[in-house]
Amino acid sequence: MKKKVAVILCGAGFKDGSEIHEAVFTLNALSANGAEVQCFAQNAPQADVVDCLSGSPMSDTRNQLVESARIARGKVKRLSDLDATEFDALILPGGFGAAKNLCDYASKGTEASVRPEVARALDGFWNLKKPIGAICIAPMVLALHFKGKGLTLTLGPVDQDLDSQMKVLGHRHVPKSVTDTCVDETRPIASTPAYMHENPAMHEVDEGIRKLVASVLSMISK
Amino acid sequence: MKKKVAVILCGAGFKDGSEIHEAVFTLNALSANGAEVQCFAQNAPQADVVDCLSGSPMSDTRNQLVESARIARGKVKRLSDLDATEFDALILPGGFGAAKNLCDYASKGTEASVRPEVARALDGFWNLKKPIGAICIAPMVLALHFKGKGLTLTLGPVDQDLDSQMKVLGHRHVPKSVTDTCVDETRPIASTPAYMHENPAMHEVDEGIRKLVASVLSMISK
Repeated sequence: MKKKVAVILCGAGFKDGSEIHEAVFTLNALSANGAEVQCFAQNAPQADVVDCLSGSPMSDTRNQLVESARIARGKVKRLSDLDATEFDALILPGGFGAAKNLCDYASKGTEASVRPEVARALDGFWNLKKPIGAICIAPMVLALHFKGKGLTLTLGPVDQDLDSQMKVLGHRHVPKSVTDTCVDETRPIASTPAYMHENPAMHEVDEGIRKLVASVLSMISK
Repeated sequence: MKKKVAVILCGAGFKDGSEIHEAVFTLNALSANGAEVQCFAQNAPQADVVDCLSGSPMSDTRNQLVESARIARGKVKRLSDLDATEFDALILPGGFGAAKNLCDYASKGTEASVRPEVARALDGFWNLKKPIGAICIAPMVLALHFKGKGLTLTLGPVDQDLDSQMKVLGHRHVPKSVTDTCVDETRPIASTPAYMHENPAMHEVDEGIRKLVASVLSMISK
C-alpha cells in the first residue's frame, strides 16, 4: 500500500503564496519515495498579490486554489474536502502565503489565528496521531494552532525574536541549518528551515526538504 | 571558475508560462552542479493567462518578467539584457508558454516565428558555439529558429505529427523516454522530453532534467 500524503498549498509565489521551490521539492521527494500525493488549497482569495520582481503590492485578486494549480499541474482539491482519515500524513510548505493565507501571523504576530479550514485539517491529523511536516515559516502555523502544547520546532537560524515568540506560544525553537530537520521528541511533527535561511543554495533547500519528507514518511505507522 | 548559465523563463505555470517543475528542476540541478545561474524573461505580456485548475482562459494580463520572478525568487533580468558573451550556456525549460510566449507555435505550427529577443539570444549562443539545452516543448523553439540546420532533437514519445513537423523544419525527431536526453551529433545542443510524456512520475522528470543539465555543462569548453 502506498503512503498517502496531503500537501496544503496557498498560491504560487514566495511573496504571497506557497514558496514554489519548497512546494516542488516536497512533491518531488514524495514522488521519489513512492508516496501518493494530493494537494489541497483554500478556495479563497490570497490575502494579497505581490509583484515578486519589485516586491510591491499589485491590485490583482488571485484565488489560492486556482494559483496553487500552477504548482500542482491542475491536481489540487478544495481544502474543505480534506479528510484526515483518508491520508497518512500532512505537509505544509512555506512561503509568505503560509503567514498570510493560512493564518494572519504576518500582520498579528503571536496574536494571529489560523484560518478555519487549515485549523480543521491540522486537528484532523493531530487527533489521529498522524505525522505533520512543516517547512520554512509554516511551523509557525503549527505553533499558533497548537498553542501551549510544548512542541519542538525549527524556524531556521538563531533568532531571538522568533525564540521569544515561540516561548510566548508555549513551544521551543531549535535553530537548524538549511539541510537539517527538527523532529519533536514525543509527537510525530517534523520541520525544516528552507528559505528561513538567507540565500541558501537551492540544492541545500532540496536536501533539507528530502530529509523532512523522509522523516514524515518514517513516522507513518503501518 | 564557476560555469555561468542563462535560463529563459516566460511566466509561471504549465498552461501559460514556464512549466514550474521543469524550471525548478533546471535551477536546482545547476545549483547542485555548482553553476552560477541567471534567469531572464521578456518584459512583455504573456500571450494569455489560463486558469490552471479549470483550463479556461482568464481575463487577466500578466507580465512574463514579473511572473517569472515567482520561480526565480525575484532574481530575473530582462531578456533584452542577455549577452551571450557573458555566459557559458543557455537552457530553455518548457511549458505551454514556450509555445505561446517564446514563439507562436501554439497557433501557427511550423509557420510560427520566434520572438525577436528569444531569436537574438539563440543566435548569440549558437554563433559562439556555446551549448543550448531545451526541455519539453522548448526544442520546438530551436527547431523553428534554426530551420533547415538538420538538428537532432527530442520532443518525447513516438509521435507522427511531431515527426512530420520536425521534417518540414529540416530536423530529425528522436523519441526519448522521460529520463533520457537527446544530444545532437555535431552541435552542442541537448534536449529532454519532461512533460511531453503524459503523466510521468515527477521524480523521473527531475532525473531527465538532471541529465540534460549535466550534458549541457559537460559541453562547455573551458
